[in-house]
Amino acid sequence: MEGKHNDDVIGRARVQDTPELEAYYKELETLGAGALWTVANDIEPWEPRTSSVPMLWKYDDLRDLVLKSSELVTPEKAGRRVVYLVNDKRKDVSAAVGWLYTGIQVTRPGESTSAHRHKASALRFIMEGEGGYTVVDGNKITFEVNDFVITPNSTWHEHGVAENGKTCIWQDGLDIPLVNALEANDYAVFDGKQPLETPINYSPITYGGSSGLLPSGQKWDKPYSPLFKYAWKSVYPALVEASKIKEVSPFDGILMNYSNPLTGGHVMQTMGASMQLLPAGFKGKAHKHTGSFVYQCAKGKGYSIIDGKRFDWKERDIFCVPSWALHEHVNLSETEDACLFSFNDLPVIEKLGLYQEQNYTENNGFQFI
Amino acid sequence: MEGKHNDDVIGRARVQDTPELEAYYKELETLGAGALWTVANDIEPWEPRTSSVPMLWKYDDLRDLVLKSSELVTPEKAGRRVVYLVNDKRKDVSAAVGWLYTGIQVTRPGESTSAHRHKASALRFIMEGEGGYTVVDGNKITFEVNDFVITPNSTWHEHGVAENGKTCIWQDGLDIPLVNALEANDYAVFDGKQPLETPINYSPITYGGSSGLLPSGQKWDKPYSPLFKYAWKSVYPALVEASKIKEVSPFDGILMNYSNPLTGGHVMQTMGASMQLLPAGFKGKAHKHTGSFVYQCAKGKGYSIIDGKRFDWKERDIFCVPSWALHEHVNLSETEDACLFSFNDLPVIEKLGLYQEQNYTENNGFQFI
Amino acid sequence: MEGKHNDDVIGRARVQDTPELEAYYKELETLGAGALWTVANDIEPWEPRTSSVPMLWKYDDLRDLVLKSSELVTPEKAGRRVVYLVNDKRKDVSAAVGWLYTGIQVTRPGESTSAHRHKASALRFIMEGEGGYTVVDGNKITFEVNDFVITPNSTWHEHGVAENGKTCIWQDGLDIPLVNALEANDYAVFDGKQPLETPINYSPITYGGSSGLLPSGQKWDKPYSPLFKYAWKSVYPALVEASKIKEVSPFDGILMNYSNPLTGGHVMQTMGASMQLLPAGFKGKAHKHTGSFVYQCAKGKGYSIIDGKRFDWKERDIFCVPSWALHEHVNLSETEDACLFSFNDLPVIEKLGLYQEQNYTENNGFQFI
Amino acid sequence: MEGKHNDDVIGRARVQDTPELEAYYKELETLGAGALWTVANDIEPWEPRTSSVPMLWKYDDLRDLVLKSSELVTPEKAGRRVVYLVNDKRKDVSAAVGWLYTGIQVTRPGESTSAHRHKASALRFIMEGEGGYTVVDGNKITFEVNDFVITPNSTWHEHGVAENGKTCIWQDGLDIPLVNALEANDYAVFDGKQPLETPINYSPITYGGSSGLLPSGQKWDKPYSPLFKYAWKSVYPALVEASKIKEVSPFDGILMNYSNPLTGGHVMQTMGASMQLLPAGFKGKAHKHTGSFVYQCAKGKGYSIIDGKRFDWKERDIFCVPSWALHEHVNLSETEDACLFSFNDLPVIEKLGLYQEQNYTENNGFQFI
Repeated sequence: MEGKHNDDVIGRARVQDTPELEAYYKELETLGAGALWTVANDIEPWEPRTSSVPMLWKYDDLRDLVLKSSELVTPEKAGRRVVYLVNDKRKDVSAAVGWLYTGIQVTRPGESTSAHRHKASALRFIMEGEGGYTVVDGNKITFEVNDFVITPNSTWHEHGVAENGKTCIWQDGLDIPLVNALEANDYAVFDGKQPLETPINYSPITYGGSSGLLPSGQKWDKPYSPLFKYAWKSVYPALVEASKIKEVSPFDGILMNYSNPLTGGHVMQTMGASMQLLPAGFKGKAHKHTGSFVYQCAKGKGYSIIDGKRFDWKERDIFCVPSWALHEHVNLSETEDACLFSFNDLPVIEKLGLYQEQNYTENNGFQFI
Repeated sequence: MEGKHNDDVIGRARVQDTPELEAYYKELETLGAGALWTVANDIEPWEPRTSSVPMLWKYDDLRDLVLKSSELVTPEKAGRRVVYLVNDKRKDVSAAVGWLYTGIQVTRPGESTSAHRHKASALRFIMEGEGGYTVVDGNKITFEVNDFVITPNSTWHEHGVAENGKTCIWQDGLDIPLVNALEANDYAVFDGKQPLETPINYSPITYGGSSGLLPSGQKWDKPYSPLFKYAWKSVYPALVEASKIKEVSPFDGILMNYSNPLTGGHVMQTMGASMQLLPAGFKGKAHKHTGSFVYQCAKGKGYSIIDGKRFDWKERDIFCVPSWALHEHVNLSETEDACLFSFNDLPVIEKLGLYQEQNYTENNGFQFI
Repeated sequence: MEGKHNDDVIGRARVQDTPELEAYYKELETLGAGALWTVANDIEPWEPRTSSVPMLWKYDDLRDLVLKSSELVTPEKAGRRVVYLVNDKRKDVSAAVGWLYTGIQVTRPGESTSAHRHKASALRFIMEGEGGYTVVDGNKITFEVNDFVITPNSTWHEHGVAENGKTCIWQDGLDIPLVNALEANDYAVFDGKQPLETPINYSPITYGGSSGLLPSGQKWDKPYSPLFKYAWKSVYPALVEASKIKEVSPFDGILMNYSNPLTGGHVMQTMGASMQLLPAGFKGKAHKHTGSFVYQCAKGKGYSIIDGKRFDWKERDIFCVPSWALHEHVNLSETEDACLFSFNDLPVIEKLGLYQEQNYTENNGFQFI
Repeated sequence: MEGKHNDDVIGRARVQDTPELEAYYKELETLGAGALWTVANDIEPWEPRTSSVPMLWKYDDLRDLVLKSSELVTPEKAGRRVVYLVNDKRKDVSAAVGWLYTGIQVTRPGESTSAHRHKASALRFIMEGEGGYTVVDGNKITFEVNDFVITPNSTWHEHGVAENGKTCIWQDGLDIPLVNALEANDYAVFDGKQPLETPINYSPITYGGSSGLLPSGQKWDKPYSPLFKYAWKSVYPALVEASKIKEVSPFDGILMNYSNPLTGGHVMQTMGASMQLLPAGFKGKAHKHTGSFVYQCAKGKGYSIIDGKRFDWKERDIFCVPSWALHEHVNLSETEDACLFSFNDLPVIEKLGLYQEQNYTENNGFQFI
């Protein structure tokens, strides 16, 4: 796309420096001011511009190090025992891509964290283990591999693994960088463990028992989903059924959003999440859009081409797609489907009116590598 | 409640007739006018006032007659082969209660109706048979006993039973009386059968596969649910699970609403519907509220006391509760749960700001019969 | 329109009576049931069908009688001293058209009513006098001729005229017939006068000071407009300005809705209201739509043709247009504009998905009289 | 507030470095990863943390330089002839505070800019001159001193001053830094001047003629206000009237929001704006909240104390209040009111669930300087 736009046109800044202007600029600077035309073309790009690069984190590389953290530090001392993944170009804000943070947390049987809360929102995608649970505002939720769990902004939350469970590893996703950038984050620690206020799994049983079935007289008034867990055991069959009858998106296969059953919208105010199924042999076309994405392969193997570079992934690998980066996904198996979990900042992008997308039209829609 | 309110107070009309006034009234009448105080107390009642009476329609009485209709008339001649249930006090508007219509429709294997549409909305609750289906705006939906299906206002719809099916009987619910009263109904016939525009069961597979899972990029902009079927095979287990952990309502047991997964609201603009489970031995307390309700027992047996009168019901029986009528429900089994399907005009009542409820406080909440 | 639709088609009921069927119908009747095909064509009309007739109430005829009521009864005895206008075909429900009630109320200097409230909503349009006021939930609002004032459902309200004022006459509009039909009305009397809870005209000053200017931090959570008065002194100039630059509707001239400044929607949940300006010489075309309308001429003179019949009106005359009635408005002056106030049940019609309209296409859009 | 929070508690990271851990951190770094506990306390602050400092830009200092720009560069070459105001701590993103940009633009009689558009939104507050106008998506809007005008995201816009006008100076406010940070900005130039698609001032006449009066049948479906101008000549009197009857906020005097008349919400998706009146002698108390603010004094003189530092302002001075900075406003006149215009990023903060506020409780609510 380079070179497509030309700044030497009416409507762009095209002022040549002169000694007089340079003196003028210096005078402005002493007053906390500047001449717009000296920065305009830079701060008003022709197209969306990201500061992140595409990256892939291979689970084979990271798993041992993640487990090792459980020998090196205790949850008590670490707060949370997490290895976080950081974009080469976003180290200053500890982001994996854009303004999104992600990390891999490990908890051993019998361990649990203390409860805390923050204005940042959080989500989990379960990678390994048995007997894991989270407690969100007094609701204890048990989870299994490939389940998706939310802990919305300002809810008290803590996690743990049952004594008779197996070491659990999950991916955390948070909007910490965004909320910090918006100068609005906060933090509080709960004094001790949260008392359970509802029966175990109250939220998924009450709000997730059957599609479209909601408790009468419910008074939920929070700006996020009352459904805190989306279980793989019903999500995956739903995707498989849909793949039999629905038109497959040339870009995304069968892409379904986890949604708030009271609004049909994103699960939380700042982050959305999806699960997509790439049918056996699927070879997606490229497009780009605003919004930053972190993916985890939940099933199968394949690769994605992101801004012209190929990233091969298999189950548990994590990768990111920056805003406005061209991307296409391929399932490498001709017999098995592949599934990609992802989370994003689309609620922000959409609510602020900043979403746009563009299909790649060259080479029949496939990027050159 | 009679006698509780006294019209002989400031703020009510208390004018005594005089010859002068009577002459005045006559003069007004010639001009298409009247004196408000002659009718005010009547048109401004102290409490909501219904013109319907509670009624029960026993399926044992009706079933043979319903089946007989399939010998007496063809769907082609009848339009729809339906026995409708009419309230003793609402015969003038063909309503079962308030402004709601209900009927029992029978279709034999291989039969199908022609397609039509109307501003009135419709819903079905399946009572008997196999191989039944409905086609709504080109979506063919198959259904089974105790499934709940909608055909919203102004959608083309038709129904049928597969050649190799078994005679199907279902309850129709419509708001025809309401839409007529609001002077807004219309009707059109489709020229022939609707062409199928989507694969079979596209709607329930796409929008009902897993709670909170919605197709990405969906553009549904209709004012009713995109989910056209709510299947008993997932609704009933959800109620059972909820009954284990949720607080049971003293009035309604475990009451869940069929809802629009994109809004969390009612399935259609003018009618809502619910399924409720009365646990074994449940003995509900009495309350009353605005809104008219038609019930069908989907499972078990019990009775309801409505404005002081007992109505015993079992599977497939239909009964109604008028607006502001006191009602309480009882499950007669000590070992089996009972389930009541119901539909209502709550969307109308709620959107117009007319909902109110009142618990019965005498006799510990149980009506005297 | 008669004869346009033919019931002798597939999709309509076309069953011929036989002795066997007649016996069947009798048997159904004993069970509180009937055969749908015996009533289907009647309850499912091809097009919206009204039970009201167009009517005009001339103020010249009514004014003396209205004033006379102030000699015949006191507000204390009458509750409210109102002459109500009733449609020849809706006397059973005391409606002026459809489910809308209207009346003309007179209050003399120094008089005031007691406070009451009801689930029905009310509005006023001021016809004559000085020093009138209403008190709505503790907000005292003063008004002048051609002001529009609301007293939403379940608000306490009372009216009066200052000692030094002049006899006030205003039109009341209520949805009493609708709320009764929906079996949801109620009534309560306030014990004495309402205490004033805010400074006089708090609502119009706070919410109506300048278009688009709203108090910061306001927490209004009621389902109706916080702006209780729309003053003619700013409404009329706005219409005049708009008439200079806006395209004039061929049906309605310059038609503006009174709206809730927090939603842009109707002022109340069940009734909407508008003011329209017919430019000098305006000769409107005919169309029809669902929804019932009551008009009052606020300025000028002209006529309306409603379902083929001409009704001549001038300032203060009141007339109605039933649902689906063809109507066209004409300003008889070639030099002065004319203004029509109207209120309607469009919020009901729209929220329930029942709005439709149709332009008259014969004779270049003008009805034959 | 320093020192209030202690990181040496359960729930915060308290891991001591060891040689083993340092080796571990290095290994993680090679994989694009890190240990969360090494950064957690920094990225999860106890309270919102801003990177901006409070600043004041005095118009007496800037005015000559702004006018000088009109001699140094042409609009054609500069794109827009603007002196922008930049926060000492936000020079990297050209922001005045937080993610908000502001500048002062000058246009001479007969000059006009070319049209362009961008995903960033813009607003103007008029400071000087006569005959100025803006054209937004084909709507030409004339403006006067202290008027507030919007040019929402992705609308084509251009500005100018009539030949017979006087040099106009106005403040621009944009969310360019925010939209860049969210990696979503774009830019396009219009080929030539926009054709006018509506009569002059169509928007304010149509949508702003009288409070609560909206054109019937309008179909506005844009996510921002259809009202593009809020005129001082009606805004100021409304504030004065409100100040006579409304309770004065101890923090903000009489604070009114410019709002979208169709929603009651902010005028645009990313920026809100307000006008506030500080009554004569008003001495506000201190509070703090999330969200960044840029102020301009529209009338009178006074000072604000921001995070303990006093900033004296008079008409046309501009200053900023960063997120979570304590601030209090004082009117220095005992006889004249003072008015502050402000714009902010509250739509972002609110939609993402990030708003919080805290009153200052020491010293009776007044900061120590």
